[in-house]
Amino acid sequence: MSFHSSHEAYDRINMIQKLLTLKPRSRGFHLVTDEILEQLPELHAVRAGLVHIHILHTSASLTLNENADPTVRGDFERWCNEHVPENAPYYRHTMEGSDDMPAHIKASLLGSSVMIPVRDGSFLLGTWQGIYLGEHREHGGSRRIAVTVLDGR
Amino acid sequence: MSFHSSHEAYDRINMIQKLLTLKPRSRGFHLVTDEILEQLPELHAVRAGLVHIHILHTSASLTLNENADPTVRGDFERWCNEHVPENAPYYRHTMEGSDDMPAHIKASLLGSSVMIPVRDGSFLLGTWQGIYLGEHREHGGSRRIAVTVLDGR
Amino acid sequence: MSFHSSHEAYDRINMIQKLLTLKPRSRGFHLVTDEILEQLPELHAVRAGLVHIHILHTSASLTLNENADPTVRGDFERWCNEHVPENAPYYRHTMEGSDDMPAHIKASLLGSSVMIPVRDGSFLLGTWQGIYLGEHREHGGSRRIAVTVLDGR
Repeated sequence: MSFHSSHEAYDRINMIQKLLTLKPRSRGFHLVTDEILEQLPELHAVRAGLVHIHILHTSASLTLNENADPTVRGDFERWCNEHVPENAPYYRHTMEGSDDMPAHIKASLLGSSVMIPVRDGSFLLGTWQGIYLGEHREHGGSRRIAVTVLDGR
Repeated sequence: MSFHSSHEAYDRINMIQKLLTLKPRSRGFHLVTDEILEQLPELHAVRAGLVHIHILHTSASLTLNENADPTVRGDFERWCNEHVPENAPYYRHTMEGSDDMPAHIKASLLGSSVMIPVRDGSFLLGTWQGIYLGEHREHGGSRRIAVTVLDGR
Repeated sequence: MSFHSSHEAYDRINMIQKLLTLKPRSRGFHLVTDEILEQLPELHAVRAGLVHIHILHTSASLTLNENADPTVRGDFERWCNEHVPENAPYYRHTMEGSDDMPAHIKASLLGSSVMIPVRDGSFLLGTWQGIYLGEHREHGGSRRIAVTVLDGR
């Protein structure tokens, strides 16, 4: 991640856009950095840029957090369940199951997309950063994401 | 939303930037996708890209969530009011009314902007996704947003 | 912030990417707009664009909020400590100190990056908007950020 000058300038930007699918996962938080990278070989050729990763659903989320200790992901799920409870007495959107309305709120608190800098063919992330999929439904199934890469030339 | 190839590449990017105004709304969450689209006819000509929509205020928010059932928006407001209460004993920023400090916190939890992929002249969103304006003041008035479109050619 | 036409279009986009360092700060929320601007003289030459500011850590955050009254930043810290407590009985990631797991959760609630429109050489922000660094550790030290500027020509 060391840069050879104080900044790098690029005269032109190319763009790539594609749809990916993330495999089904259990309710909770999951590290998906590698699953996304495997489906994005185009990134290897990018010297510097930005990548926007957007989840096309309202009951799952994308966020960046600690990539090493799985108990962090468990604690995320436990905090979420405590603070965005099922069956709150004030919920009126209850027809799609007790996990549905909390899933919508969690999705907006954590976010539907991440924007990540790119450098030398990979994500420019901190040592401990990885991409979390927040799967907020019991049976969310596979999740579709739209990826847009801005590639400085 | 089906793509005709595994990915689409674009050699050049154009940019459009403009200021829009959203009409005044009551405190709560409101679906504003159509109101934004109506003020963004430039989007029709965009084959693929990204649009950044930024609200120029600290007591209102933009987020993506469920676009069909209005009780979801009501449940968002009720969850927010329960978890970001007015008149918390530890608030010291209280001069601008009891709805003001909670509005600031809600704005940062939900976010000041959304970045949305664009495809074939419209937002590339999931079937159930729409843009919510979170109006967190009692009398927020009209809200200004800055829109920046990145248009791949 | 007044625009001279309904929208401005730009045929080409340049990109600049650089790493910056924010000086160490105490736990809490801090206004860092000026510290970032001082390290980003390249922004003066940008007529219109976007800037992505990304923090390379999982226990600190970046968000936009009220830039005038410091009690707002204090209330942010107090709300966070109340709602993302230390020593919750369900935390299992506890080896790095009682401030560590709450710091991770706060980082994802508030976000790792901000994307801000640029206009006439500076951030296109609302009158009351500034950039907050959320320092969620007791001794977080200096924080590294990656800045990517998209510059419409």
